[in-house]
Amino acid sequence: MRFERKDLLDLRSLSAEEINLILNTAASFREVLERPIKKVPTLRGKTIANLFFEPSTRTRLSFELSAKRLNADIVNFSSSTSSVLKGESLLDTARNIVAMKVDALVVRHSSPGVSHFLAQKLPVSIINAGDGAHEHPTQGLLDLYSIRERKGNIANLNVAIIGDIAHSRVARSDIWGLNKMGARVRVCGPPTLIPKDIEKLGVELTYSIEEALLDCDVVIMLRIQRERQKVSLVPSLQEYRDFFSLNREKLKLAKPDVLIMHPGPVNRGVEIPAKIADSRQSIILNQVTNGIAVRMAVLYLLLVHSSR
Amino acid sequence: MRFERKDLLDLRSLSAEEINLILNTAASFREVLERPIKKVPTLRGKTIANLFFEPSTRTRLSFELSAKRLNADIVNFSSSTSSVLKGESLLDTARNIVAMKVDALVVRHSSPGVSHFLAQKLPVSIINAGDGAHEHPTQGLLDLYSIRERKGNIANLNVAIIGDIAHSRVARSDIWGLNKMGARVRVCGPPTLIPKDIEKLGVELTYSIEEALLDCDVVIMLRIQRERQKVSLVPSLQEYRDFFSLNREKLKLAKPDVLIMHPGPVNRGVEIPAKIADSRQSIILNQVTNGIAVRMAVLYLLLVHSSR
Amino acid sequence: MRFERKDLLDLRSLSAEEINLILNTAASFREVLERPIKKVPTLRGKTIANLFFEPSTRTRLSFELSAKRLNADIVNFSSSTSSVLKGESLLDTARNIVAMKVDALVVRHSSPGVSHFLAQKLPVSIINAGDGAHEHPTQGLLDLYSIRERKGNIANLNVAIIGDIAHSRVARSDIWGLNKMGARVRVCGPPTLIPKDIEKLGVELTYSIEEALLDCDVVIMLRIQRERQKVSLVPSLQEYRDFFSLNREKLKLAKPDVLIMHPGPVNRGVEIPAKIADSRQSIILNQVTNGIAVRMAVLYLLLVHSSR
Repeated sequence: MRFERKDLLDLRSLSAEEINLILNTAASFREVLERPIKKVPTLRGKTIANLFFEPSTRTRLSFELSAKRLNADIVNFSSSTSSVLKGESLLDTARNIVAMKVDALVVRHSSPGVSHFLAQKLPVSIINAGDGAHEHPTQGLLDLYSIRERKGNIANLNVAIIGDIAHSRVARSDIWGLNKMGARVRVCGPPTLIPKDIEKLGVELTYSIEEALLDCDVVIMLRIQRERQKVSLVPSLQEYRDFFSLNREKLKLAKPDVLIMHPGPVNRGVEIPAKIADSRQSIILNQVTNGIAVRMAVLYLLLVHSSR
Repeated sequence: MRFERKDLLDLRSLSAEEINLILNTAASFREVLERPIKKVPTLRGKTIANLFFEPSTRTRLSFELSAKRLNADIVNFSSSTSSVLKGESLLDTARNIVAMKVDALVVRHSSPGVSHFLAQKLPVSIINAGDGAHEHPTQGLLDLYSIRERKGNIANLNVAIIGDIAHSRVARSDIWGLNKMGARVRVCGPPTLIPKDIEKLGVELTYSIEEALLDCDVVIMLRIQRERQKVSLVPSLQEYRDFFSLNREKLKLAKPDVLIMHPGPVNRGVEIPAKIADSRQSIILNQVTNGIAVRMAVLYLLLVHSSR
Repeated sequence: MRFERKDLLDLRSLSAEEINLILNTAASFREVLERPIKKVPTLRGKTIANLFFEPSTRTRLSFELSAKRLNADIVNFSSSTSSVLKGESLLDTARNIVAMKVDALVVRHSSPGVSHFLAQKLPVSIINAGDGAHEHPTQGLLDLYSIRERKGNIANLNVAIIGDIAHSRVARSDIWGLNKMGARVRVCGPPTLIPKDIEKLGVELTYSIEEALLDCDVVIMLRIQRERQKVSLVPSLQEYRDFFSLNREKLKLAKPDVLIMHPGPVNRGVEIPAKIADSRQSIILNQVTNGIAVRMAVLYLLLVHSSR
């Protein structure tokens, strides 16, 4: 099977076969990361640009390291040091970078749809690295990879996603990806942080964390994104913690081998106690490592493997 | 012919032969950019530093990509994260970077003459990437390259440069370069944005865009540099647009195969309507691509080719 | 002899043998820097991350160039564009970067002990690139290298360190290193800028620059770190200059072949007159060049040479 796409914009439009192709490709790159020399010459002579219109550490670094380990050249553009200051449009900025013979743009932006828009307008590969509260497909893929690595399979698992669903592009990508791979997804959070009609995405909704955790195979805790909330949507962090933080007692409702995941950055002591974040069941740092393998796979499939 | 210079500081002091050598060298690198692997090992083991004391996207990225495609190492220094904060002088900052065994400095600064000053004081190659409103020689060279690529020749062409001549280092480098290559240059803009005695540079001056465009082979539109103007030198953007923006009607005065150029970033709808910026006659994005080839040529000629 | 450490945190805990091993290794890399191709493939496939929580030019660039000349990949993280903004702890930030399969972290932070803390918690190599006013071991090592290069030996030399001892991590690393190598160290500065009990580090203390300079082989001038002083600890720069600046007259007290050093950035005309900073006796820029060789040696010894 070939990967016949120009861009990676969301998980919504990927098929289960395409997701499996990405995960299988990632598995071979995951093995490269255990070698003494963690590099392959796959993308030598290709150029990738990180276009980040929001501050980011881990995602930018993850793409940067993924590109370097494939021997691609990568350059960083961020809006603070940019001709955006000079009044240039987003599309013109992107077009100019593409005109420098760049093969792929990794785009993060606070507005949903920016990557889709650029993908329509530009001939190069666009990778959505997060567009507002819409999607963050490589995070969704690395979550799928991390679950499959530990559980062997994704189909028929009970997965709970708990926290600020409304502001989370990760939740949205996870829901699309998990559904396509056959998992049963439950979402849970305070009513003010659950989007209307979320059930239409094919998830169960509960406002009780106990219900969400019952017989769970995987629990994905989300960060309270204080920087994204224009108004306070939870009465207090203390109250949020009382109702929606994980703790040992609540975790007993889940299956004994439940996996605990978090897309990071973790607010220790808010959505998850430090002890649980660092426990044997937590695979939070494995997710980060797998993110490199998944992003290497995406870059490879878009830039080399496809028949374009 | 050898390129016998240590630095590229301006087009004023280059001969037509030197300019032709750079353009011919750029043509061979332009071809590299069309290959699947857009890299050559020419500058392996050489180190280049971008020293940018003004915010910039495209020029910094263009030099960064040019260096990487020659296999040089390149590091970025910008004044916001710098020991300039600690009171160090510009020359000391540059000397320190040179002491780290750097082979060339690419310098952008808001003050005219900074590159010339550093070139006198330092033993390494200095490339002026824009010094105040003085010169921006690699932009001038890429403009010459882009014209020659489409017209076959530069001599005897009618070239109009329209807009904010006073604040434009691009205009100054273009004027020197075009004159040396035998073009006839006309400049046009509102009286407040035309420097005194501009005719002494060997150009025709007109305040009428219609006169400037008449029988033109090439028109170079300049950006209204709002961020450089300490006081407002045009009554209003609307009035500027009425008098000095390009439009289809005015363009009929030029030759039918007129080329439309702009150094970017473009203020769409101010100095140039979006439709004309994106038209078949516009080579604005070709200029960007050619910028990579020209900068590769300059780095190559300064660091390898010369007999130093 | 093998270098059996995971980290380089300070000079306090290094033995004279370990310091000699680093300096000898640096000497072979110093020679690489004189070659036309200033690179060796030693660290190909290794990844290093600069984690800078304070602004820095020279140290970040020096590590970046050192890594690149060993063919390592290096990525830059600085706190201004970071998930530290999102409330993540320092340790979580570091853990996440390590999870991306990074082999070494170069850490600068305003708090003493941050590198030691990370070294205890993390399995990868930590290099302290300055922690508050505590230590800056690679600066100490490059100072030792620079003295040894010019004097042949360090033992029995008279070395004066003059200026703001209290706020200087460089002074602290120099004192530990020089003492271990057998030099006699004197410190001198205004009483408000001398830490209590400094003599316990094995140095002589004097408040007279004339006494400090008498028969000196090496004088290390420190920068008045205005950005570190919360309150003004010197009555005025003029007064500081009168008492503690170097000048030709005072220098006659030192040995005729005295070396003048400064960790930079230099405040010309404050702690040292421009003429002396640029004189034949000054090795300020040699220190910068040697810094590359010393950092290459440290990276090599930590990442390749040790038996870990």
